[in-house]
Order: sequence, then C-alpha cells, then structure tokens
Amino acid sequence: MVKVFWCVGMPRPDFMKFFSSRINYMYPSPIREMVAKIAYKSRIKPVISFAAGEPDPDVLPRDIYASMVSDIFVRENRIVNYSPAEGVLDLREAIAGFMKSHEYVDTSYERIIVTVGGSQALDIIARIMLEPGDVVVTENPSYVNTLLCWKHYGVRIVGVPMDDNGMITEKLEETLKKLREEGRLVKLIYSIPTGQNPSGITMSMDRRKHLLEIASKYDLIVVEDTAYNHLVYEEVDVKPLRALDKEDRIIYVGSFSKVLGTGLRIGWLEASPEVIEKIRYSKQPMDMCAPVPCQYLVLEVLKRGLFDEIKAKAIKAYKEKRDLMMAALDKYLPQLKHTRPVAGMFILLWLPEELNAIEFADKLLEKYDVAVIPATPFYTNGSGKNVIRMNFSMAKPELIDDGVNRIAKLVKELVAPAVA
Amino acid sequence: MVKVFWCVGMPRPDFMKFFSSRINYMYPSPIREMVAKIAYKSRIKPVISFAAGEPDPDVLPRDIYASMVSDIFVRENRIVNYSPAEGVLDLREAIAGFMKSHEYVDTSYERIIVTVGGSQALDIIARIMLEPGDVVVTENPSYVNTLLCWKHYGVRIVGVPMDDNGMITEKLEETLKKLREEGRLVKLIYSIPTGQNPSGITMSMDRRKHLLEIASKYDLIVVEDTAYNHLVYEEVDVKPLRALDKEDRIIYVGSFSKVLGTGLRIGWLEASPEVIEKIRYSKQPMDMCAPVPCQYLVLEVLKRGLFDEIKAKAIKAYKEKRDLMMAALDKYLPQLKHTRPVAGMFILLWLPEELNAIEFADKLLEKYDVAVIPATPFYTNGSGKNVIRMNFSMAKPELIDDGVNRIAKLVKELVAPAVA
Repeated sequence: MVKVFWCVGMPRPDFMKFFSSRINYMYPSPIREMVAKIAYKSRIKPVISFAAGEPDPDVLPRDIYASMVSDIFVRENRIVNYSPAEGVLDLREAIAGFMKSHEYVDTSYERIIVTVGGSQALDIIARIMLEPGDVVVTENPSYVNTLLCWKHYGVRIVGVPMDDNGMITEKLEETLKKLREEGRLVKLIYSIPTGQNPSGITMSMDRRKHLLEIASKYDLIVVEDTAYNHLVYEEVDVKPLRALDKEDRIIYVGSFSKVLGTGLRIGWLEASPEVIEKIRYSKQPMDMCAPVPCQYLVLEVLKRGLFDEIKAKAIKAYKEKRDLMMAALDKYLPQLKHTRPVAGMFILLWLPEELNAIEFADKLLEKYDVAVIPATPFYTNGSGKNVIRMNFSMAKPELIDDGVNRIAKLVKELVAPAVA
Repeated sequence: MVKVFWCVGMPRPDFMKFFSSRINYMYPSPIREMVAKIAYKSRIKPVISFAAGEPDPDVLPRDIYASMVSDIFVRENRIVNYSPAEGVLDLREAIAGFMKSHEYVDTSYERIIVTVGGSQALDIIARIMLEPGDVVVTENPSYVNTLLCWKHYGVRIVGVPMDDNGMITEKLEETLKKLREEGRLVKLIYSIPTGQNPSGITMSMDRRKHLLEIASKYDLIVVEDTAYNHLVYEEVDVKPLRALDKEDRIIYVGSFSKVLGTGLRIGWLEASPEVIEKIRYSKQPMDMCAPVPCQYLVLEVLKRGLFDEIKAKAIKAYKEKRDLMMAALDKYLPQLKHTRPVAGMFILLWLPEELNAIEFADKLLEKYDVAVIPATPFYTNGSGKNVIRMNFSMAKPELIDDGVNRIAKLVKELVAPAVA
C-alpha cells in the first residue's frame, strides 16, 4: 500500500528509537478505525452504519446551516482569524446561558472554555491532572476514546459495574475504599450519567446523589461527560451532576456534536476558576483555538433558538429508530440480551458467548456491509469479549431492520457449525 | 471578576492536589494572552494589531468562501459527520498533490494526516516522541507556542543562534557535539527555515543542506515547520528541507492558516509510515478529527485552484505592508535594530536595552491601543528581554505608519526620563 520513498541501501532512521515510552500506551481506537474502514468501503458500495455515535445527517438542517454559515462568512470578518484560546467571547456567554436554560446550571463565561469537541476537553483534563500511576474510576464499560486517551498519560483505569440504574454506587464506594487501602492515588471519577456510552444506560437520580456524596467523602473530582444529555426519549429526571453538586467538585464536559453534528467539533469545559486557569495554559499552545467558523455557526444556532428545534426533530427521529432497532433485535435475535436505552444513541448487544466481537465486526463489514463497533475495548477489565455497540441514530430508518437481519445472519452462520 | 458559586464555609476541593506535575511546565502563551486582551479591548475601542501572525481578513475572499461553504453544506452530507481521524480522504489526496506542485515533494495520502492547524501537529509530535529529559534543538529565538507546548512534555530546549542566513549550522553541530558529550539524548531538530517565527529570517540553501548533513551525521529527526513557506516576497530559493532530504528524516508540518485563514484550523503532518502509524493512534482519541466543514472548504479551495490566487493577492498586500512597516520603523525609530524579512509575517524589533518587552507590550495596548508580542518568551535562553515581534500582515496599510508612530512615542516616553 505505502509507496517506497527511499532506495534500498539508503540510510534511514531507526524510528523506534525516537518514540517516547508513551507509545506503549497507545492503541488504535475501534471507533476511529471503523470510521476509516467505512470511508474506504463507501467508495465502492453502500454501508449500513451502526458504528459511530452520530446524528442522522437528514435530521440536521444543512440548508439552514448553509445559509447561516454563508451569512456569517460575509458579515463577520473575524471568522477567518484566530479566536482567543478560550473561544469566541459571545459563544462562551451563549454557552453559559445554555447551561442555565438547558442544564439548571448557574455559571458564567469565565468558567467556560470552548474545545474541539468534548474529546479535546477530556484530553486537556488528563493533561493537567493525570500522571503515570494515578487511578481513574469509571463505569464499566465506559467510553473507549476517553479510556484510550487517558491511557496515553499512563494512568490505571478501574471500572465499576452498572445495572439498569447506572453505575452501582455501592460498588463505587467499595472500589474506592479498596484502592485507598492499597495506597493508590485516585484523582477522578469519570461518569457519563445520561445515555451512557456504550451501554445506553441512564443513571437514576438516587445514584447521582449518592455518587456526589461519595465524591465528597473521598474528596475526588468528578468529570461529568454530558454528550448525550439532550437526547432523552422518556420522562426521566436527568438533571446533571453539575446541577446537584454544592461543592464545585465537577468538571462538566459539554458537546454540541450529538445534536448539531459531530463534524463541527465544538464542545466545551465548565469548571472552577482554579481548574480553568490551568486548562487555559494547557490549551493555548495545543491548537490555538477551536475552529472559528464552527464556533460562529454554533453561536448563531443558539442565538436563533434553533438548538431546541433540531433537538426536538432529533429526539423524534432517534426514538423511532431506537424502537425499530429494538424491535428488529427482538425479531431476529430474540435469544440475545441487549440494553433498552431511555437516552443517548447506543444499544449494547451480547453476542453468543463463543463469538469474538472484534472478529465479528470485521467480518460483518466485509461480508454484509454493516458496521458496528466491538465493545470489548470499552471494558476496563478485559471482559465484554462478545459484546457489540450498535448506534441507532445514524442509519436510515428503512435500513435498520435489514441491517439487524444481516447481523442475525452472520450470528447464525458463525454459531451454526458449532451446533451442527 | 469571577462570580462565587459556592458559599463561605462550604467544603471545596483543594484543586492544587489534583493537578499533575505537568502544570509546573505550563506557562501562558504571550500570543494567546494578547489575542484575548485584544478581543476584550476591541469591544470598547479599535486596536491596531501587530500581534498574532494572521492573514489580513480583507485579503481573504470571504464572499467566495461564503458561497463555497454554503454549496458544500447543501451538497456534501458528510460535512456534519466525523471524518476519519486522518482527515477526509479527498483532502489528504489533494494535499499530496499540493506538496508536489508547491513544495517539490513526491508523497502520497498515506503519509499525510490532517490536523487542527499546524499547532496540533506539533503537539502530536511531542506526544509520540518526547519525554522528560529529552532535548530538542532549535533556532534561538523560535516559535513560542511550540516551545511552550513541548515544555508540557518536560523536555529541555536548546537554542542555536541565527544570522541573516538562518540558523548558524556550524553552531548547531557544536551544540550537538557538546550535548552528546554531556550524555544528553537529543531527539529532534525543530526548524522554521522560511520566514521564521519570530525573526522573519529565511535560511539559505547552503545552510539547509548543511542542516540535513548534520541531522544525518548525528542521526536525528528534523521537524520542519513550513507555516510561512508560501509567503515569500523576494526571489529566493526556499525549497523545503523535505524536498532536499534523501533519508526520510523529516516530519513535515504544513499549515493553510497563513494563506487561507488561521480561523479554519487546518494543517497537516507528512512523515514516514512508521511515524504516521503512531500519530494516527495518538490523534484518534485526542479530538476524533479536524473540523469537517473546514476540511471540505480547504479541499474546495485546492480543487478550484484558488490557493494560488489568494496567495498572489496575499503576497502583493503583505509585501507592501512589510515595506510600509520597515519604512515607518526607519522613519520613527531609526536608532533601533530590526530584521528585514524576505518571507513570512514578522519583523523583530530590538527596543532600547533598558526596556522590558513584556511591560512595554502591555503598556502599549493599554495606552496607545497598539498590540505587539513581546519576543522574550521566544528565546530559549532567557535573553531577548527588550525584543518585540511585530506582525505586518494583519493591520490595515493606512494604520501601519500610525501604529509604528505610537510605538515610537511610547519608546520615547519610557526612555526619555533616563536620558533627562
């Protein structure tokens, strides 16, 4: 595949000796690798994607974005220039307003830094807080890209089991007690309370309060990842931890990706002034600022009150697709366990125990042109060998039944020989 | 300024204990801090900015961008979704073509990863290559944000002096020899050969060849920062190191910021397959991908051949402004030394020795509404106390004379008392 750019016999550096020890903690992201494979394959034939956690492009008002972004390019001459590293001032103010109106959080722009998606926010948190040997406690399974990113910093990640009400907080306390007895330095609890990735599970209000009590008792910082907070399909109370916290103990990670579009890469961090100061200094030379046209586009969406319109349309569409996917799973794979999310974008599916999720996902794309994400790397303890994550927001509704049917076919093919 | 979000007596975490030791290496960026100050101040009154290295917004065809980006939003439904972490495939291919047509480099898309500006490229290089105690050798002074970013990784940065022909490569060899004798591990040479930041100096062809010989002899990787390669105002040979290298020893850092607009945040990395593989794994969870609308916009600019049009317009405008700034310096501050750049966006100005550049820049913005960047933090060895970096590309031509005049006024005010 890769062309040769040097001649045999010519001296070349031995690159291995230049790499830092950090590369030993770097593993490919199963999501990003799958997205790349889909991009290649899509050039040849259509793929039904249940892979990345993405809005349906048909739900997003691309025509309105088009006219807004065009207007902004003409009107706003700062759009082609750097913004401050913290983000466009008006956008930070608008986000503070958004957190008040949508998240019950009273904050101010000084506590907000705009980032390249929620992902960069999570990277920066690690950069200012984590070093080799530190421990982070999280739901098991948890969002693989956060785990992968934080592992670059040499930390140990300890998972706490979940049930249908989210992280089992009694187990969280047991875990923290044990780690303390072992003399380990736990710094952060990382949680995705609403529409958790990859499980789709939403934490109950009692558990949320209990988690905060434990964080206070053990004096820990809580990183709250709210990527799915605005995609809630049932009547449940999903007030964020940040709105319940009375000790300024939360670093709130926000994202517009899941409602407005992942391609825009606009997220943010909201935290105490002490933390924000360090984040500023960390972020400044990392990338100068988040992409400015995207910052202005999101600002315009917020100013015009479009967020709620898009959100309403998204919820309607994704709820329907979630139901289609669950119905198809119940129809074609009734023997297999899956989660029943009230929020977010994902369903976890447990394949028959003898199947390997990573091999399954590769074969599924290759043979049946359906993309799913193996959930194994989302597990903190090497379990989940037979679990796959299925996104229900992105695929066209009329393809969901067919996609699940193809998954069922491959399951049967792979399991049948063993049965025969 | 910051509101109180907790009540006196309420327990709050002692945040200091959660920070990693890395924060000891984090310092504010003088450029980013100045950009933030300008953003605040501009809300009250107009500022003449000689600060950040930015294209003139009036040179950029914002109306054409507006119509292109609007078309793309309507046409390209993937614009709202993640791209592969490596970047949009078509853009990577277009960049490979661009490197051939504009940089004499024969490469392929597999060797290219699109980044959030050249800055992120430089951060990723550090992430995969640098660890505490490693040494990086660079021009002195050098680009402050690279220095700041790489210091996050605990490295030592050693500067090599420059003359009008760029880094003095004989001194480079002496430095490397000495470091080797001291038993220090030097991994990278970081160089900005063309229109160097902050000096504006362009490295001669002989020096470029000599630098490569030394890199080969000492078996080092060279990080070539080409941000200013397309803004060359005189007839000089500025073939990049990458085009001269025969050992695949270069990590080429590219950027569209300085010609097409810094706000877009689109840059790239071009390197050997071994390096690219590690960069992929490093970048995947850092931010998922570069902003997708900006990727498509740059792709469209390249496809339509607009880059050369914008570049020609930029060169004409910035050459004129460079000449205006040099003329104004010669008129108002004839006693002070400054560089005479043939490329790039910057002039270095040596203030009278008794002046402190950092204090000077603050006072200048406060009193005279002119923004410059103190160059002191660009120096690797604590020198340059009285040096300021002046950008000539961004300000309106009719304001340059006035801006320099105000600088001269402040110099006189600050120096006069000592003379009296």
